[in-house]
Amino acid sequence: MAMTDVPEVVIRRLPLYVRHLEHLIEQGERVISSAGMGRLIGVTPAQIRKDLSYFGEFGRQGLGYDLVYLRSQLLHILQADKQWHLALIGAGALGHALVHYREFREHLYHIVAAFDVDSAKVGSQIGDLTIQGMDDLADTVADLGVEIGILAVPSDAAQQAADDLVASGIKAILNYAPIGLSVPDGVRVAHIDPLASLQTLSYHL
Amino acid sequence: MAMTDVPEVVIRRLPLYVRHLEHLIEQGERVISSAGMGRLIGVTPAQIRKDLSYFGEFGRQGLGYDLVYLRSQLLHILQADKQWHLALIGAGALGHALVHYREFREHLYHIVAAFDVDSAKVGSQIGDLTIQGMDDLADTVADLGVEIGILAVPSDAAQQAADDLVASGIKAILNYAPIGLSVPDGVRVAHIDPLASLQTLSYHL
Repeated sequence: MAMTDVPEVVIRRLPLYVRHLEHLIEQGERVISSAGMGRLIGVTPAQIRKDLSYFGEFGRQGLGYDLVYLRSQLLHILQADKQWHLALIGAGALGHALVHYREFREHLYHIVAAFDVDSAKVGSQIGDLTIQGMDDLADTVADLGVEIGILAVPSDAAQQAADDLVASGIKAILNYAPIGLSVPDGVRVAHIDPLASLQTLSYHL
Repeated sequence: MAMTDVPEVVIRRLPLYVRHLEHLIEQGERVISSAGMGRLIGVTPAQIRKDLSYFGEFGRQGLGYDLVYLRSQLLHILQADKQWHLALIGAGALGHALVHYREFREHLYHIVAAFDVDSAKVGSQIGDLTIQGMDDLADTVADLGVEIGILAVPSDAAQQAADDLVASGIKAILNYAPIGLSVPDGVRVAHIDPLASLQTLSYHL
């Protein structure tokens, strides 16, 4: 699905579009103009039209965008309309929160396995999952068709865990550890960095 | 500290610079060139120089940047070199993970109070904090000098909690709820949206 000429910043806006479309649909709305969409997202109507034009024609001049149609198309572009299998690495407090996070499962991103380096945790439960040791990672990734890894480990354990994920064949990592990761070409990492967000907030205070 | 003419995208890169500088300092490095910095961050050396030029002169032609000096200057610009007081709204699994997240406290962002709408939780402990009811929010914000609110509540409770934070005088909100918030001018919201990150990852798979 990935088109090579789409700027990453555009791709990152697509989930935001989907969120706003879902919210409008819940409110009973059916169509929206580029201008209305631009106001919601905080970009110009021209930017909205340009972003969407990378992927096709989704609206008609003067008629605006059909919300349900545009949402389904955007989810398809993001490949978010199929089910994904995720493996969680790190069964601490954050891992616990993540396996209970309804948002993932409701949107077809299912955590299907959990791992920890701490042998004392292996065999105990986290949500509905039995915590496994890292030695089982490669087999489980293959058996369950895991496509995405979530790193919820401390900084000093993150690179080793990332290496293990890559060795098991994983091509996409959602990294909660506050550290940059070295991964081979062809493996993508997305960072969740709340400290950076706090620092951006405090800049403005 | 905020300078009005600095693009938000530049401000968002500053914490990333700090992270990489800290990593280099830990590895025993002392200086870095714009080119070296650009490679780490994934932008051009010219962009590095332009980003930093908004805030002053931090390096000398041919000598590169002194890592420790640049880090301290960037932390000062972000106002991340002083202590901030945070209030957590939502004492569920995510709230539990957040009060135990060392990264915040180690970087001077201290969660000093925790609140929940669920009266059954009020009075019990989350980390070192006693969970308070929302009725206590305004008084506690004033008493403890809380400057930043963290929303760790479900989507359908987020807007009300944001309204309560704003009414208590909070000007900055870190929002973990997967929903846009309406806040008055002068109040800033930063979103943590792991589902959006997963959707961006699956686009590329």
